[in-house]
Amino acid sequence: MPRPERQVLVCVNSRPPGNPKGSCGQKDAQSLYDALRDIIQEKGLQDRIMVNRTMCLKHCSQGRVVAVQPDNVWYANVAVDDLAEICSSHLEKGQPVERLSMPDIPWE
Amino acid sequence: MPRPERQVLVCVNSRPPGNPKGSCGQKDAQSLYDALRDIIQEKGLQDRIMVNRTMCLKHCSQGRVVAVQPDNVWYANVAVDDLAEICSSHLEKGQPVERLSMPDIPWE
Repeated sequence: MPRPERQVLVCVNSRPPGNPKGSCGQKDAQSLYDALRDIIQEKGLQDRIMVNRTMCLKHCSQGRVVAVQPDNVWYANVAVDDLAEICSSHLEKGQPVERLSMPDIPWE
Repeated sequence: MPRPERQVLVCVNSRPPGNPKGSCGQKDAQSLYDALRDIIQEKGLQDRIMVNRTMCLKHCSQGRVVAVQPDNVWYANVAVDDLAEICSSHLEKGQPVERLSMPDIPWE
């Protein structure tokens, strides 16, 4: 079973302080990733849902950026407090969390 | 347009020399990523195809690992010489390159 049912991509890219783009890493995306891994484990979803850290996923001003594939759903400004809803609604039931949708901006 | 038509994930994760799992980083996956970025630019696909480096995508023994989303297609042992075919067949025409398919092994 090489393919995950769903794959959650968490940008953890860091840019130096003062860089005008900012970065998800500066916004502590590592903690977001850690928390999501914990939730996936607690729910026993680790054989269905793959969670991966990535370098820059673009949309930098909207970080922390999270993408869920193969749904091609992109989330903006995701916080640890949003993860339970992403997990129960989207990852388990296939219903994306509309309030977190990436706005329709160009790739940055 | 926040969503890419296709997203190519290239694992560049590195483990220390001697680690029994090996890693894509040790197999110079960075050069694979660089070459793919160049091809996407040369073909003018950079507004449709997003190419991202990731940390571990699992399937470590099969590295260099590349995944193409939202097709949920996973490739094993991808080399620079395979990229032109992946690009012309899969990324441009939507036809995955079967000979590079990830074997049906558990996530590692």
